[in-house]
Amino acid sequence: MAGATVSPTPLLKDELDIVIPTIRNLDFLEMWRPFFQPYHLIIVQDGDPSKVIKVPEGFDYELHNRNDINRILGPKASCISFKDSACRCFGYMVSKKKYIYTIDDDCFVAKNPSGKDINALEQHIKNLLTPSTPFFFNTLYDPYREGADFVRGYPFSLREGAPTAVSHGLWLNIPDYDAPTQLVKPLERNTRYVDAVLTIPKGTLFPMCGMNLAFNRELIGPAMYFGLMGDGQPIGRYDDMWAGWCMKVICDHLGFGVKTGLPYIWHSKASNPFVNLKKEYKGIYWQEELIPFFQSVILPKDCTTVQKCYVEISKQVKAKLGKVDEYFNKLADAMVTWIEAWDEQNPSEGVVANVPAK
Amino acid sequence: MAGATVSPTPLLKDELDIVIPTIRNLDFLEMWRPFFQPYHLIIVQDGDPSKVIKVPEGFDYELHNRNDINRILGPKASCISFKDSACRCFGYMVSKKKYIYTIDDDCFVAKNPSGKDINALEQHIKNLLTPSTPFFFNTLYDPYREGADFVRGYPFSLREGAPTAVSHGLWLNIPDYDAPTQLVKPLERNTRYVDAVLTIPKGTLFPMCGMNLAFNRELIGPAMYFGLMGDGQPIGRYDDMWAGWCMKVICDHLGFGVKTGLPYIWHSKASNPFVNLKKEYKGIYWQEELIPFFQSVILPKDCTTVQKCYVEISKQVKAKLGKVDEYFNKLADAMVTWIEAWDEQNPSEGVVANVPAK
Repeated sequence: MAGATVSPTPLLKDELDIVIPTIRNLDFLEMWRPFFQPYHLIIVQDGDPSKVIKVPEGFDYELHNRNDINRILGPKASCISFKDSACRCFGYMVSKKKYIYTIDDDCFVAKNPSGKDINALEQHIKNLLTPSTPFFFNTLYDPYREGADFVRGYPFSLREGAPTAVSHGLWLNIPDYDAPTQLVKPLERNTRYVDAVLTIPKGTLFPMCGMNLAFNRELIGPAMYFGLMGDGQPIGRYDDMWAGWCMKVICDHLGFGVKTGLPYIWHSKASNPFVNLKKEYKGIYWQEELIPFFQSVILPKDCTTVQKCYVEISKQVKAKLGKVDEYFNKLADAMVTWIEAWDEQNPSEGVVANVPAK
Repeated sequence: MAGATVSPTPLLKDELDIVIPTIRNLDFLEMWRPFFQPYHLIIVQDGDPSKVIKVPEGFDYELHNRNDINRILGPKASCISFKDSACRCFGYMVSKKKYIYTIDDDCFVAKNPSGKDINALEQHIKNLLTPSTPFFFNTLYDPYREGADFVRGYPFSLREGAPTAVSHGLWLNIPDYDAPTQLVKPLERNTRYVDAVLTIPKGTLFPMCGMNLAFNRELIGPAMYFGLMGDGQPIGRYDDMWAGWCMKVICDHLGFGVKTGLPYIWHSKASNPFVNLKKEYKGIYWQEELIPFFQSVILPKDCTTVQKCYVEISKQVKAKLGKVDEYFNKLADAMVTWIEAWDEQNPSEGVVANVPAK
């Protein structure tokens, strides 16, 4: 039975990279030292490459600025956003590890209701190493957590679950609101600690936030493209959303699970709502077309790898969203470039998933 | 914006009935007195009708035993189960109120993490009076709760939500496990208080437990048939599950929402796992066919009322599950009888829902 045995969580020290996009010195790492120091960091420096980013001593890291990205990817560097945290996905591509954890540099260690520091990474690892339950909802949430199980009426044939591809963590203090909500509720803080992890059911889309996110790179890495945002692009702040919708459609097709809930980080600072509004407003408008689009994407049975699924989605983006705005044609091309660059950087890969019968 | 204003929860004193199936004296009501006394109780006495059930003084109630059920429904009483808590649905049928709360007589008042008694009914009312979000998942859970809202990336066109038909509450202490899980984990107790309410997304089925459940009778009442269980039937303990699957398919079709999570009650006593195994074993086996069946039910566009949807499901049950076991033919007939009896008892009804475009 799930949860009957409790074993220590493996650290995955040599199997996980922490990806951090930044434009400033990484003092925030001091607070994370007890939890992050065993891991390799991939720092993606955004903005002016001549600026020197200070990393606290004792951390094992590689740092890539724009010059590095251009040198490594050549002309394919065009798919990596500039002056936007979307650039973080470059780190996913050059990692050689099985798992990725990505966190923003304004995120700090949160405390659980007993006042204990939350090891966010450990909880993400637990989420990723236990199965998901995308095919049927369990009312006591994650049945694989200690002290929980499947409830009466949960089909036994589904209790093995599905491999977990993504673990989406949440935020205490500053909630991840869009600009209009920020403007209307400038003082709202998230103080509710919800002690739950749950699987987002198959067929359901959600807003994936890139602030506190972990995933199995081997299972789903190539779908984690954060799109074209920031410098020279008509929108921002939809990078993680875009990745989340593409990723979810592919996970649903390939039979992988996506969890959300614990762990929490402490999100320290609200970004400027006026700046955000400028970045977001086209996204807010386009999104009304994007959601029905993603809800109706059907991937053919011969899409047996994440790459094939992703390229297929890019075609459908061009065919169906190109008429919403020229931007989506550019984005569709960048999606293909991203996959080409991914395959160049990861030549030996190609997990062939077993596409479940529909 | 949702949650911006906080107003006291209406009691709905004259719009809600509490339905309790029982075979014993209702001493458990003493603990609920501060919360339940303003309401009308409908007690459905199961088993020997000559037994006298004592109800603590000061409660306003009507009590129906088997003789009453037979007298009120005549030959149609055959659709109401005997010697099984499934008989509770008779109470839903004879209620004249807009809302129903149903609770088992082994459920007591639970405490929240601060040690305060939880007014389960008040939380159910909050859940029912605020919309649901079945079309897109909100990662901060119910956006209509105080201190919460829709997160970045949630489509604005969906923020009005959908009418909430059902509020499914949970249980601290004894979890609602099936017999095999009870046998394997006799000592497991649910001690995790998850401070969340969430909408079960459209297209997702879940195991609905009848122990602590509220619903909008006007919106979904006729779907809340608890089937044929107990005396003379080959299964038990699938009454609420059956209702939940039928109800969810109909809510998805008619555009209504189903919430789960808070409130918790304290479930005091585990039922006998050996007895439960005997009741459940056919259900455990049949369920493997039932879930794919309910996942594939499609209701035609002209099913614009709960009654029409329900009768359509009964036809599909007969056509597709009749071959699994003769029991399902009998059940399908009982489903039709239930609707006929419902309409006789509720002659002026007939909410015509606006079936949303697919």
